[in-house]
Amino acid sequence: MAASASSLLAAAVSSSCAAISSRLPRGAPAAASVPSPSRQSCSSLRASLARRQQSRFVASVAPTMQPPAESRVSTVVDVDLGDRSYPIYIGAGLLDEPDLLQRHVHGKRVLVVTNTTVAPLYLEKVSWALTHNNPNVSVESVILPDGEKYKDMDTMMKVFDKAIESRLDRRCTFVALGGGVIGDMCGFAAAAFLRGVNFIQIPTTLMAQVDSSVGGKTGINHPLGKNLIGAFYQPQCVLIDTDTLNTLPDRELASGIAEVVKYGLIRDAPFFEWQEQNMSALLAREPSALVYAIKRSCENKAEVVAQDEKESGLRATLNLGHTFGHAIETGTGYGAWLHGEAVAAGTVMAADMSHRLGWIDESIKKRTVDILAQAKLPITPPETMTVEKFKSIMAVDKKVADGLLRLILLKGPLGSCVFTGEYDRKALDETLHAFCNN
Amino acid sequence: MAASASSLLAAAVSSSCAAISSRLPRGAPAAASVPSPSRQSCSSLRASLARRQQSRFVASVAPTMQPPAESRVSTVVDVDLGDRSYPIYIGAGLLDEPDLLQRHVHGKRVLVVTNTTVAPLYLEKVSWALTHNNPNVSVESVILPDGEKYKDMDTMMKVFDKAIESRLDRRCTFVALGGGVIGDMCGFAAAAFLRGVNFIQIPTTLMAQVDSSVGGKTGINHPLGKNLIGAFYQPQCVLIDTDTLNTLPDRELASGIAEVVKYGLIRDAPFFEWQEQNMSALLAREPSALVYAIKRSCENKAEVVAQDEKESGLRATLNLGHTFGHAIETGTGYGAWLHGEAVAAGTVMAADMSHRLGWIDESIKKRTVDILAQAKLPITPPETMTVEKFKSIMAVDKKVADGLLRLILLKGPLGSCVFTGEYDRKALDETLHAFCNN
Repeated sequence: MAASASSLLAAAVSSSCAAISSRLPRGAPAAASVPSPSRQSCSSLRASLARRQQSRFVASVAPTMQPPAESRVSTVVDVDLGDRSYPIYIGAGLLDEPDLLQRHVHGKRVLVVTNTTVAPLYLEKVSWALTHNNPNVSVESVILPDGEKYKDMDTMMKVFDKAIESRLDRRCTFVALGGGVIGDMCGFAAAAFLRGVNFIQIPTTLMAQVDSSVGGKTGINHPLGKNLIGAFYQPQCVLIDTDTLNTLPDRELASGIAEVVKYGLIRDAPFFEWQEQNMSALLAREPSALVYAIKRSCENKAEVVAQDEKESGLRATLNLGHTFGHAIETGTGYGAWLHGEAVAAGTVMAADMSHRLGWIDESIKKRTVDILAQAKLPITPPETMTVEKFKSIMAVDKKVADGLLRLILLKGPLGSCVFTGEYDRKALDETLHAFCNN
Repeated sequence: MAASASSLLAAAVSSSCAAISSRLPRGAPAAASVPSPSRQSCSSLRASLARRQQSRFVASVAPTMQPPAESRVSTVVDVDLGDRSYPIYIGAGLLDEPDLLQRHVHGKRVLVVTNTTVAPLYLEKVSWALTHNNPNVSVESVILPDGEKYKDMDTMMKVFDKAIESRLDRRCTFVALGGGVIGDMCGFAAAAFLRGVNFIQIPTTLMAQVDSSVGGKTGINHPLGKNLIGAFYQPQCVLIDTDTLNTLPDRELASGIAEVVKYGLIRDAPFFEWQEQNMSALLAREPSALVYAIKRSCENKAEVVAQDEKESGLRATLNLGHTFGHAIETGTGYGAWLHGEAVAAGTVMAADMSHRLGWIDESIKKRTVDILAQAKLPITPPETMTVEKFKSIMAVDKKVADGLLRLILLKGPLGSCVFTGEYDRKALDETLHAFCNN
């Protein structure tokens, strides 16, 4: 250790401080067609998308590099956050395009954070993509145990240990390779390591691809509640290779669908209707259906995050079903239920409560239950969740403000919701008693 | 726990969501005179100071409150960071003015983070200041063990535990009451709790008052290096009651003086000359000398931070002597030497290296050694620090970029420095060998 430190210092003068140069996008996507959104998109997002796709066509010359291979990027969604804006690339086989990833790497050192399940499947491929024709970059990796129950401070410390032992500096890049747990932990570690280094999200589960990898929410769990410790910290890019879904267990796929359903319910009725018609295709992993569901989900999320990055209001609506769902995850022990499974049951409870308040028609409640049931997701909480357990855990939810528990509830026609603390608590009590044995 | 959660939820509808209203400053300070800076200040800072003092005179009417008592605020220094700007109040007896503190509290719940040394001295007073004539606010506290060796993740988790067990929500305020360790840990905890809550700094050591409480650097140590995990996170205000220095041990006072000397060396030659003439007064705790040294230090820091909040360049110059100093702290075990003691020895080493490079006159090196010696600070590292130990620890310093160790070195006339990786490493080797036995 001392010897390598010594040689490192010895190199102080001769070393160049230059980072690998940021590369221009090269080549036009082979299939740059973006399916027409089935609802009216935010015009700024459309403009931004148009700009990006235009720039991809224009900036096709990179003199020092090989002519472009045919790009498989089918869609790019921009998250518009001023100087923290970044692209989400969505398509099949994107990990076979080293250039796409490399243009977002800062510095010469990369730390890939992944887990014991994903590492055997994709770590080698990602390491190749980072270093192919790019000898200046060296890649370290840290392989964490897999599962929500390891989303804690002790596990995250292993990332810091590895980064520090590897002598990574401020010009390094962290890469999150895995599902939501890996993305959240790696993102928070990147936010806190040396007070902030760059990071890239490569989500490999549908849950992470449609939700958690986008928008910069990072964090870990506390034994008393989900995601209570963390940071808002945006990645350099999100790279979604839909081929990674081929190795995803059915139960994990369904978990991600719970979040897809959420976007329809809170703000995108046509997308909900599309899901009702295409759920079989999604469950059968029909590629074009998956890409469309991911794209439309990311567009919805990007629109919301661009308007309310730090969740002062609007962004909270993305947590439909999550207050009940987080209580289930905390109450049953992290990992017993997948996040999306808990969210599905929570969404049904939120719809039930909204109906009791007279805020939505019976039909919306029914369609909510039906679509989640079709996706083979739970529509009731586990029997171990009592009314008191729900109340006790929900009281430490991040959406409590000055003692007032605020909830996301459906209100109005399909695709409409509110985030409010102004509701008759009797409805909440009735919902809890309707879904719990005691 | 379940019962209180239940009653909390029961209060959901009846509770008002309104926070305590932010109060206008009332009354002009009795002694608002700011001593003329002994060097030319940044004009924007002057303008900002002028605005604030003007606003303090203008906004003197607060109909629902008592007429103002005579304010003891002698100085207000603004940290100009756009929407994250905040004031530093400096004066004797400021903790006897509840209004000053209360106007910066957000929400109804406060968590005071302090340690076993400071709690018996000032926790009751601060709790009084937070709640006097302010029955809506409730105060919790967490008392951590005292010392740099406890500036770690395990200790910081106690802050999260307390906050979560107390069911604090996003509208709470964390108050750091103590020295640099408490300020750094409380600030990082505030940055990460629920992804960010408000916080206030009440520094009680000279070190924290002249340096660490200002500018938003927060964090904890890793066994392999100082402050490697943290966040840039700005407080709502910094309240410096110079009366708290009355209980500070001599060794702690001297430690703070090391940072005061730093400002003179890197950017404020007249301040350095003032220190040479007034060191006896500082060591004797002459109140006006202390207030002036604190004010001038905060002004220097505020100017630098306003120009480079995230340390992309200029701000790094505030770390003169710190790379050597951090190596001493890490190498000898956190807490064996006080931070300022390590920085003092590190500053002498930096001056020595600068002189070997031919960048400063012998006289500047001598004056550096003399002033630190006069403050009874160490001017050489401890004997246990070997050359290899220095090199090994310095290699993981945050200022390493792409493998290149950058240092802050003095260059030119008194009050000038550079932050650079371009130096002859022979000079570094010679300095290390001159100060270490092997």
